[in-house]
Amino acid sequence: MSVAVSPLAPKTYPDMPAIDGVRIATAEAGVKYKGRTDLLTMVFDEGTTAAGVFTQSKCPSAPVELCRENLAGGEARILVVNSGNANAFTGKKGRATTSAVGEAAAAAVKADKSTVFMASTGVIGEPLPAERITGFLEGMAAKAAPGGWLEAARAIMTTDTYPKVATATVRLGEHDVVINGIAKGAGMIAPDMATMLSFVATDAPIAAPVLQDLLSRGTGKTFNAVTVDSDTSTSDTLMMFATGAAAKRGVTPINDLKDPRLAGFRRALNRILKNLALQIVRDGEGARKQLEITVTGAKSSRSAKKIAMSIANSPLVKTAVAGEDANWGRVVMAVGKAGEPAERDLLSIWFGDIRVAHEGERDPAYSEEETSAYMKKDEITLRVDLGLGRGKATVWTCDLTKEYVAINGDYRS
Amino acid sequence: MSVAVSPLAPKTYPDMPAIDGVRIATAEAGVKYKGRTDLLTMVFDEGTTAAGVFTQSKCPSAPVELCRENLAGGEARILVVNSGNANAFTGKKGRATTSAVGEAAAAAVKADKSTVFMASTGVIGEPLPAERITGFLEGMAAKAAPGGWLEAARAIMTTDTYPKVATATVRLGEHDVVINGIAKGAGMIAPDMATMLSFVATDAPIAAPVLQDLLSRGTGKTFNAVTVDSDTSTSDTLMMFATGAAAKRGVTPINDLKDPRLAGFRRALNRILKNLALQIVRDGEGARKQLEITVTGAKSSRSAKKIAMSIANSPLVKTAVAGEDANWGRVVMAVGKAGEPAERDLLSIWFGDIRVAHEGERDPAYSEEETSAYMKKDEITLRVDLGLGRGKATVWTCDLTKEYVAINGDYRS
Repeated sequence: MSVAVSPLAPKTYPDMPAIDGVRIATAEAGVKYKGRTDLLTMVFDEGTTAAGVFTQSKCPSAPVELCRENLAGGEARILVVNSGNANAFTGKKGRATTSAVGEAAAAAVKADKSTVFMASTGVIGEPLPAERITGFLEGMAAKAAPGGWLEAARAIMTTDTYPKVATATVRLGEHDVVINGIAKGAGMIAPDMATMLSFVATDAPIAAPVLQDLLSRGTGKTFNAVTVDSDTSTSDTLMMFATGAAAKRGVTPINDLKDPRLAGFRRALNRILKNLALQIVRDGEGARKQLEITVTGAKSSRSAKKIAMSIANSPLVKTAVAGEDANWGRVVMAVGKAGEPAERDLLSIWFGDIRVAHEGERDPAYSEEETSAYMKKDEITLRVDLGLGRGKATVWTCDLTKEYVAINGDYRS
Repeated sequence: MSVAVSPLAPKTYPDMPAIDGVRIATAEAGVKYKGRTDLLTMVFDEGTTAAGVFTQSKCPSAPVELCRENLAGGEARILVVNSGNANAFTGKKGRATTSAVGEAAAAAVKADKSTVFMASTGVIGEPLPAERITGFLEGMAAKAAPGGWLEAARAIMTTDTYPKVATATVRLGEHDVVINGIAKGAGMIAPDMATMLSFVATDAPIAAPVLQDLLSRGTGKTFNAVTVDSDTSTSDTLMMFATGAAAKRGVTPINDLKDPRLAGFRRALNRILKNLALQIVRDGEGARKQLEITVTGAKSSRSAKKIAMSIANSPLVKTAVAGEDANWGRVVMAVGKAGEPAERDLLSIWFGDIRVAHEGERDPAYSEEETSAYMKKDEITLRVDLGLGRGKATVWTCDLTKEYVAINGDYRS
């Protein structure tokens, strides 16, 4: 099992500013790992709004069920995240745990238990005793402090090879507000470590329904446009919290989606979501290359995205990229199997700027040598034009290497 | 790149009887490979009916288009199959080739060109000059002889590690008739070798519409119930030919699907289709284990099959089987992502006879040791009961090993 840091890891980390209204603490709870932090609490000031997007799995984890339930209230006072155990497929025991942790967390911040949010990542099917977490919460709530975002990102790692953070400062009317985000995972990064988690916070005063709309729309071209291995986790959770603390600095609250100040905020948020999503792809199991796939000329954007995902999830395309092979025959195969409108004889395909196929045939001008040189890069772009309409989509994935099989074929225990 | 014979290859081959009305010839045409046969012709007596099932790809190969067109006539006089080049994604050149080969083949057997069927398997996107094939056809038609089924299976191999044949003799009313079949491939077995091909013939006198119904219904639980890597080829072709020669021995023709003699014939045919389909799985890229997946208790059979295929195509389930890991957490994940009705807390999961999970939790009686011993077998069965209804389906796949990545990540040229 590979423990080396991904060759696609960021070279440097940004300075993560504190966010007014958010306090952070981490702890070594020993849920499963020893000698590292595995428990994170984020404590939010009163009035913090929440939004969330969760796994589409029909068998979601117990924490995902709790978050969905509490999101109805739209208010957040504390987030509790543990690594080492996903509390997924744990039946009634799983719900007993989320309930007990929820009560202890609520007591620790003296708030209603409907304002507690929770996420767990790690082994599936192993009961998670609430006691491993509850005893830490009061102390953590007391010592929670502004800052500590990189430490927060570290505490939620499972077999991630690097912590994932992103930040932006954005003008909201006359004032600056901050957006910070952290993430972990890469689809299903390692044996039973089945979770993509991401948490974003801002001090902007944004009403919960507006926040939910920003987040839901933001995921389509970011988190929902990446794939490592087509395997959707039982625990995927993306949450966003807006403390509203910037209101104290004179920022008037945003209660309406049509607020003109949202345009810049939305752009900055989407950049952060994309940044975090790409960091996950670049830490995909065994990944050595990032592959950006753009489909243009489709009947619709939905159709373009379905075809792009069919390419991104094809084991044959992904192994070809690992082998530095501009194997456009497999790209045609993946277009054909997507089940979406496509005309073989209108297809064109590019690797980088090199057009390798045109009008349903190999491009006569295509240079094997030039293409081979391009395929040695660690960031590959692939474009397919269908020649049918104006639908367009971009998705991201990584290559499929022997290390993926090694990491995931190692025995569970 | 592995060239060793699959550990799951059959230990012995059946004796393949001749089929009255079918004559076979193979040749070393040198389409791509040297020192081996790569061209097959099957010549059929007048009155032979044909049926076919083809790839669902939106970008099918030129030979698939030709077969679909000619199938409208329902009559077959010659089948031409080459390995080494798939004639897929070859644009107008590809259609010119199928047209020229079709004319030469028709001339060789002095029949109408609408009775010619064709299949090509090998590299995608490389033009296939008709001259590499046409010059051989007259000679092959002349020397074609009864028997030679194992040689036929060898001529259509690409990187298959063994030829795939099956036979059955079945009572039709008062008389015996024979069904023979050959197949090649395993989804997308090797770099650019993108084809699953299978051809079945019988001397039973069966009208084309009846034959088509038998074949179409037969594929659902056989060829359409296997997967190696979820990648659908541009060239998948399954064809069946009925020479009717048994009529000379007194078998009255079958023109009606309600003919009671069909029951036994259908059972024998379905056994052959399943046998060939499983031989393909067992020769899947890098395969070391066969995995049979049965889903019971689903809302419908369609729903059961979709869930079974979601499990069979999950890279994480397949790598776990390669690692001899009874990783039922990943099975839950794959059930959850299928998008079909499922209730986490009703799920039960068995590896072999060992129930590892029950009512949405780990089975308390589950023995890790016993399960580990079971997972060392080379044929693994997995059963998931959803507890919702009576829908049921079984599918077959192989494990995902490092050899799969090695075979498919090797450079194309």
